[in-house]
Amino acid sequence: MPSYIAPTKDTQFVLHNVLNVSQADTPGYAELDAEFTGAVLEEAGKIAGEVLAPLNPVGDTEGCVLENGVVRTPTGFKAAFDQVREGGWTALDLPEEYGGQNMPYVLGTAVGEMFSAANQAFTMYQGLTHGAASAILTHGTDEQKQTYLPNMFSCEWTGTMNLTEPHCGTDLGLMRSKAEPQDDGSYAITGQKIFISSGEHDMADNIIHLVLAKIPGGPEGIKGVSLFIVPKFLINDDGSLGDRNGVKCGKIEEKMGIHGNSTCVMDYDGAKGWLLGDMHKGMRAMFTMMNEARIGVGMQGLAQAEIAYQNAVIYAKDRLQGRAVTGAENPDGPADPLIVHPDIRRSLMDQKSFIEGARAFLLWSAQLIDQSHRGDDAAAEGLISLMTPVVKGFLTDEGYDMTVLAQQIYGGHGYIEESGMSQYTRDARIAMIYEGANGVQALDLVGRKLAQDSGKHVMAFFEMVKNFCKDNKDVEGMSDFVEPLKAASKDLQTAGMFFMQNGMKNPNAALSGSYDFMHLFGHVCLGLMWGRMARAALSALEDGSGDKAFYEAKLKTGRFYMQRRLPATAMHLARIQSGAEPVMGLDAEQF
Amino acid sequence: MPSYIAPTKDTQFVLHNVLNVSQADTPGYAELDAEFTGAVLEEAGKIAGEVLAPLNPVGDTEGCVLENGVVRTPTGFKAAFDQVREGGWTALDLPEEYGGQNMPYVLGTAVGEMFSAANQAFTMYQGLTHGAASAILTHGTDEQKQTYLPNMFSCEWTGTMNLTEPHCGTDLGLMRSKAEPQDDGSYAITGQKIFISSGEHDMADNIIHLVLAKIPGGPEGIKGVSLFIVPKFLINDDGSLGDRNGVKCGKIEEKMGIHGNSTCVMDYDGAKGWLLGDMHKGMRAMFTMMNEARIGVGMQGLAQAEIAYQNAVIYAKDRLQGRAVTGAENPDGPADPLIVHPDIRRSLMDQKSFIEGARAFLLWSAQLIDQSHRGDDAAAEGLISLMTPVVKGFLTDEGYDMTVLAQQIYGGHGYIEESGMSQYTRDARIAMIYEGANGVQALDLVGRKLAQDSGKHVMAFFEMVKNFCKDNKDVEGMSDFVEPLKAASKDLQTAGMFFMQNGMKNPNAALSGSYDFMHLFGHVCLGLMWGRMARAALSALEDGSGDKAFYEAKLKTGRFYMQRRLPATAMHLARIQSGAEPVMGLDAEQF
Repeated sequence: MPSYIAPTKDTQFVLHNVLNVSQADTPGYAELDAEFTGAVLEEAGKIAGEVLAPLNPVGDTEGCVLENGVVRTPTGFKAAFDQVREGGWTALDLPEEYGGQNMPYVLGTAVGEMFSAANQAFTMYQGLTHGAASAILTHGTDEQKQTYLPNMFSCEWTGTMNLTEPHCGTDLGLMRSKAEPQDDGSYAITGQKIFISSGEHDMADNIIHLVLAKIPGGPEGIKGVSLFIVPKFLINDDGSLGDRNGVKCGKIEEKMGIHGNSTCVMDYDGAKGWLLGDMHKGMRAMFTMMNEARIGVGMQGLAQAEIAYQNAVIYAKDRLQGRAVTGAENPDGPADPLIVHPDIRRSLMDQKSFIEGARAFLLWSAQLIDQSHRGDDAAAEGLISLMTPVVKGFLTDEGYDMTVLAQQIYGGHGYIEESGMSQYTRDARIAMIYEGANGVQALDLVGRKLAQDSGKHVMAFFEMVKNFCKDNKDVEGMSDFVEPLKAASKDLQTAGMFFMQNGMKNPNAALSGSYDFMHLFGHVCLGLMWGRMARAALSALEDGSGDKAFYEAKLKTGRFYMQRRLPATAMHLARIQSGAEPVMGLDAEQF
Repeated sequence: MPSYIAPTKDTQFVLHNVLNVSQADTPGYAELDAEFTGAVLEEAGKIAGEVLAPLNPVGDTEGCVLENGVVRTPTGFKAAFDQVREGGWTALDLPEEYGGQNMPYVLGTAVGEMFSAANQAFTMYQGLTHGAASAILTHGTDEQKQTYLPNMFSCEWTGTMNLTEPHCGTDLGLMRSKAEPQDDGSYAITGQKIFISSGEHDMADNIIHLVLAKIPGGPEGIKGVSLFIVPKFLINDDGSLGDRNGVKCGKIEEKMGIHGNSTCVMDYDGAKGWLLGDMHKGMRAMFTMMNEARIGVGMQGLAQAEIAYQNAVIYAKDRLQGRAVTGAENPDGPADPLIVHPDIRRSLMDQKSFIEGARAFLLWSAQLIDQSHRGDDAAAEGLISLMTPVVKGFLTDEGYDMTVLAQQIYGGHGYIEESGMSQYTRDARIAMIYEGANGVQALDLVGRKLAQDSGKHVMAFFEMVKNFCKDNKDVEGMSDFVEPLKAASKDLQTAGMFFMQNGMKNPNAALSGSYDFMHLFGHVCLGLMWGRMARAALSALEDGSGDKAFYEAKLKTGRFYMQRRLPATAMHLARIQSGAEPVMGLDAEQF
C-alpha cells in the first residue's frame, strides 16, 4: 500500500532559511513566521496523508462513471471533498471578501504540492475551481462576483475551463463554438468542448463553466474569442438554484491516468451564458490566469515525483536483494537492502536532488507571483512571466522522468498496478500536456518571453546569477556550487546569444533549439536554487541551530546536483548550436 | 485507429547495404539475397500490419481474464495465433530437425521486430515459447527434444520461463521452490512463481513450463538451483496428452500494459518435473539463452518506438494547428499541419534517428549471434556478450523515451486511450524491467563484461571504431560522421579508463557510473551504425542505384544523430567522472 508523508521540514527550510518569507516586505508576508506556516503545513500534511492519499488508488481503480448524464466520482471522494471544504482549504490564498483566507500564494502553493502529491486527480476539482474563481475575481462585474464567488471559494460550486474543441487545442483561433447575443443581455452558447477536467461530477451543487466562444460578426481567429460564464444550474435572483442550463456531459474519456478526475466532452446547446470581461478579449482574460495555472501544473510534476520517490525509498530500504559489492551490510539477513547498491543510489539521488531543487524553484516562483500581485513589483512580474514556461515545462518533464526512475526501483513489482508506482507515472504524464503542451511552453519561452521588454527580464536573471556567484565565491564551502553554476549560466547565455545572432535571419534556427533551451534554463534555475540552499545550510551549520544531519544531507544532495545534473547544460547547448539544418532538413514525405 | 506498416525498405537497406548479409561467409547466409529476405519480410509485414496490429488495442482493452483456473485471451488472439502457426512463423530460425525453417537469427530478428511492433503482448506468447524451446534444444536429452520440440516449434504447445518468486527476482539465490527427487527419476516441484508471462492461456493444447527450483541437500544459494521441465498436461508414451499436472495459475496480475499477455502467479504443488541439463547448473542453462532473450527485449524497445513514431508522423502531417513561423505552408487550409513546426520536427527527428540507428544496431547484434552460433566465431561471441546489456538497456530506455515523445505530439489526444498512443508507452515500459532490469544490465556491463577475457572484447570494439574512422576519414561526405564518432568513442575510452583506475580501489566508483556508461556505450554504437549507414548511402548515391530520396534522408537523419544525440556522451562522461562520493555520500536514513 503506497503511503505519503508531507515534506513539511523541507518546505519549512525553503520558506524560512532560503526565501526568508517572514522578513520579506511583501504585503501579508509578515504573518508567515515559522510557527504559523509550520502549523498550516502540519494540518495540510495530515489531510494529504490521512484523507487524500488513501483515496488515490481508489480513484485510479474505480475511475469516474457516466450514467444517465450523471458522473459518479470514486468511492470516498465526496466525503473527502466535504472534509477539505470544511477545513477551509479551498480558498486559502483567495481574498477574505468572498470567504477566502487571504494567505499568500506561496503558502497556498506549499499546501497545493501536498494535496497534489497525495491525490492529483482529486485535487484537480478544487484546482480548476480556484482558476475559474480567479478569472471571475479579476474580470467579473461586482454582481458576477457576488453571485458566484462565495460558493466557488468554498467549493460548494466547482468551476471548469472550456477551451479545447475536437479540431483545436493549441490553435484556439480555429474555434467554432458560438455565442449568440440574446435580448436579456445573455448569450446562447452552442458548441462542443473536449478534455474538460471536472466537467461533470457529483461532489458539488452547481458547476460554473467558463467557456470560450465566438460572437458572430466579431473579428476572425483568436481576436474574436470571448469568455462566458455558463452555470450548470441557472441561479435565481435570491441565489437559489433554478433550471438546468442547456449544457451536458456527452461522454467521459478513457485516459492513461488521473482516472479519479472526470475528463468530459461538454455539449452546449443554446446554453445561457454571460460575458466575462470584455467582448472579443476572451484570450486576454484567460492569459491573466495562465501564469498561476501553469505554475500549478509545474507543481504537479514535482508532487508526483515526490510521492513516487518516497515510496521508492521505502522499497529500497525494505527489499532484500543481493549483497553490497564492498561487503555485506546486513550480514544476519538473507541479503542486503536494495539501497546498498550504487545504481539504486544513483537513481534515488537523481530523484532527491531534482525534488528538493524543484521545491525551492516552485516556492520562489510563487513568491515572485506574490511580489507581483501583492507587492505590485514590475521586476518580479517580468521575471515570473519569463520563467513560467520553465516552471511548467521543465518541472513536468523532469517530474515525469523521476516517477519512471522511482517505478524502476520496484523492478517487476513496479509494473504491477498493486504497487501503486504505475499510477504516479500515468498521472504525471498529463502534466506535460495540459495547460499548453511542453513544446508550446518552449515556443512561448524562446519565441515570446526571451525578447519581452527588450530582453530586460532575462538580463535581470543573468544579473541575479552573477551577483549570487560574486557574493558567494569566497564563502567557504561554496565553490562546489558557484563554479558549476557559473559554467551552466554561461551555457545559457551562449545559447541566448546564438538565438539572437541566428533567429532574426531564420526563426527556425532559434525554434529548433527551443526545447533544449527550456531544459537548459531549468537546470540553471535549479543550480541557482541549490546554490542558495547550500548557502542557507552552511549558515545553519555555522549557527549550530537545527538538525545537523538534515543540513549535511542538503549539502551532499546539492553537490550531487551540481556534479551529476548540471553537466546536461553543455549537451543542450551543443544541440541548440547545431541550428535549424539538422532539424528542418527533411521534406515531410521523407518522414 | 492506430496503424502499422512494416519498415521493410529500411530493414532491407540494413541487411544488404550495411551488413551485406548474402556476401557474409556465415553458414546459411548465402541464401539471404535481397529477393529472398524481401519476400519473407513482405509476408511478415502483411501479417503484422493486417492481422496483429488490429488486435493490439483489443488486447489492451480486454486484457486476459482468469475464470475457474482458465485464462481467456482477448477476442481474436486465438485465430491470429493459428494463422501465425500455419504460416510457419513460430520457428523461422530454429532447426529443421524438429520442424523449424533453419533461417539465420538475423532474419528471425527482423521479422520479430515487425511482430513485436504490431502487437507486443501477442508476440510474447511465441517469444517465450521460442526461448523455452531453445533451452531444451541446447540442454535437453534426445528424448526430451523428441517429446517437446516438434509441438513447441509449431506453438501447438507454448512455453514459459519460471524464475521469479515473490521475495526474489534479481537475486535468485534466495529461491525457495523445491524439487524433491522421485523414484521414477522425476521430481516433485513445489513453490510459487510470479510474473510468469504466458503462464496460462487458451491458445495452446499444452504449456511447457521451465522452472528453476532447488533440490534439497544441494549447495546453498544460486549454486544449488536446477532447471526443470514441467508440462501443464503430462505426456503419455504415445505422445498424447495425459493427466493434468500439479500446477495452476493462482492469479493474473493487473499491469500497466501488455494486457493481452497473461502475467501469472503459478502455484506448483508437487508437480511432476524432469531435470533439464545438469543438476545444480540451472543458472548456467538459463544463461545460455540470456543473450538472445535480452536482445529480443532490446528489439521490443525499438519496435514500440517504431509503431509510436509511425503514428506520430501520421498525426503530425494530418493535424492542422497554427502557422509555420516562416509563412503559411498550407495557405488554403485553416492552419498548417503540425509537421511545419520546428519543435515537432525536433521530436520526430529524435525518434527517427534513434529508430534507424537502433535497427542497424539490433540487426548487427543478431548477425554477431549468427557468427557466434553458426560460424563458431569466438571474437563475435565475445563482442556480442559485451554488447548484450547495451542492446537491452539502451534500446529499451531510449525506445520508451521515444514512445513518450510520440505520444506528446498528439497533445491531449495522446493521453486519451482511444488514440492508441498511451498503449505504446505502457507496453514499452516493461521492456526496461524484465529479463534483468536495466540497472542490472549496467552492472553486468561494467561489473562483468568490460573486464571479461582481460578486456579483450571492449578493446576489439574500440579497434573496430578506430578502423572505421581511419578507413573513412578521407571519404567525401564522411567527416560529418567520422569526427563526432571519434569524439564519442574517446569519451567512452576515457570512462573505461576511469573505471580501471578507480574501480579496483573502490568498486563503487565504477558502479556509480555504470548506468551512464551503458548509455554512453549505446550512443557510440549508434554513432558507429550511423557511420556505416552513411557510408552505404553515399555509395548507393554514387552508384545512382535505388531511391535517391531515401539515401539522402538517411544521410540527413544520420547527421542529426551525430550533431544532436552524440553530444550526450560528454554528459555521461562527466557524471561518471564524478565518481562514488556524490552517489554514496548519504546515510540510508538521510533519504
